[in-house]
Amino acid sequence: MSNAEFLSQWHKAVVDKDYDILDDLLAENVEFHSPTLWKPKEGKDITKYILMVISQLFEDFKYHRQFELDSSFGLEFSAKVEGKALKGIDLIRLNDEGKIEHFEVMIRPLNTLNLIFEKMTAELQAAGFLPKDL
Amino acid sequence: MSNAEFLSQWHKAVVDKDYDILDDLLAENVEFHSPTLWKPKEGKDITKYILMVISQLFEDFKYHRQFELDSSFGLEFSAKVEGKALKGIDLIRLNDEGKIEHFEVMIRPLNTLNLIFEKMTAELQAAGFLPKDL
Repeated sequence: MSNAEFLSQWHKAVVDKDYDILDDLLAENVEFHSPTLWKPKEGKDITKYILMVISQLFEDFKYHRQFELDSSFGLEFSAKVEGKALKGIDLIRLNDEGKIEHFEVMIRPLNTLNLIFEKMTAELQAAGFLPKDL
Repeated sequence: MSNAEFLSQWHKAVVDKDYDILDDLLAENVEFHSPTLWKPKEGKDITKYILMVISQLFEDFKYHRQFELDSSFGLEFSAKVEGKALKGIDLIRLNDEGKIEHFEVMIRPLNTLNLIFEKMTAELQAAGFLPKDL
């Protein structure tokens, strides 16, 4: 898969919310580095789940500058959560088979990031990916 | 100034802390979009000041992937603040004269970002850029 093909599939998955495409795009051992926590989540299932929850949380999601460097991408985006504006970037690195092995997300500003943290924690607890007595 | 020359000067300014180079690199009407606050700061003086304070706050600062797209850069970095690790990205857009007109910073994770916010607020208050009774 070329970089252009990868990007086209990625957009179908997260912008058009055709999440099953993620099964082909994510490596089994993918690391997800969240905007809020330092320690990465590891593996395809939890990463797919988080990407689905985040993309459902975001309103008015749009990609802007799309940087490429070798097998890495930097995808700038804007969105809203409960009407609060945010900017962010997806930093994606593909492995030799063209699958995502490293996914890092950064988001500004702080108030919206705190809101995302609250909402994501509740979703992950409800789904059993996090203990309820954090 | 070519993109490569710009990057070389930028590194001298912020990695080697030769801050006066920023006078040549920043446009008069530069907008600084911080990782913590939504509303940008406008103008060369406040932007230079913030870049100086942030770069003095960071320990073990290193650039990693350096993305380029037309007259934009995405410069991935890592650093520590009081021993706490962080990742971040500088999103930089140059104007037609090759000077920085738009500067946006995103940082993860949340605990380190909160620490940076506290420290930056105190510095900006001490320097008179922010009221002391926030």
